Amino acid sequence: MTKARVTVTLKNGVLDPQGKAIEGGLASLGFDGIESVRQGKVFDVELSGSAKDAESQLADMCEKLLANTVIEDYAVEILE
Amino acid sequence: MTKARVTVTLKNGVLDPQGKAIEGGLASLGFDGIESVRQGKVFDVELSGSAKDAESQLADMCEKLLANTVIEDYAVEILE
Repeated sequence: MTKARVTVTLKNGVLDPQGKAIEGGLASLGFDGIESVRQGKVFDVELSGSAKDAESQLADMCEKLLANTVIEDYAVEILE
Repeated sequence: MTKARVTVTLKNGVLDPQGKAIEGGLASLGFDGIESVRQGKVFDVELSGSAKDAESQLADMCEKLLANTVIEDYAVEILE
């Protein structure tokens, strides 16, 4: 079995109102010195195949479902 | 300036209907051999202070706002 982590983040330049809201929330809680916050998603996927197969399969999953590649970047990391 | 990534994931044993829905979506797209999918959140935070200060400040942010520590775990990673 292969465990992998897929991280999906907004591309640079894409507005992130959710991140802005978190930034405001942190500031109002008294946290100083926050320059920016951007939010993304993480998917922990367990696959039955080998790590080698998993990598290309996960990239395919990102292209088709997990990420919106117009506005998002993704990174696949094989954990074990 | 310090860049950090905070990853918030559901604790083991906590139900993840969103992850289950993604699992179903991937299966219906024809992806085989998926054992499980669990979804989490990632926050890319830029802070003006030093990396040393950032780590404890970010842990504090997680406890107070970014994570619900009853059902979620968090990990702080200083990137630069």
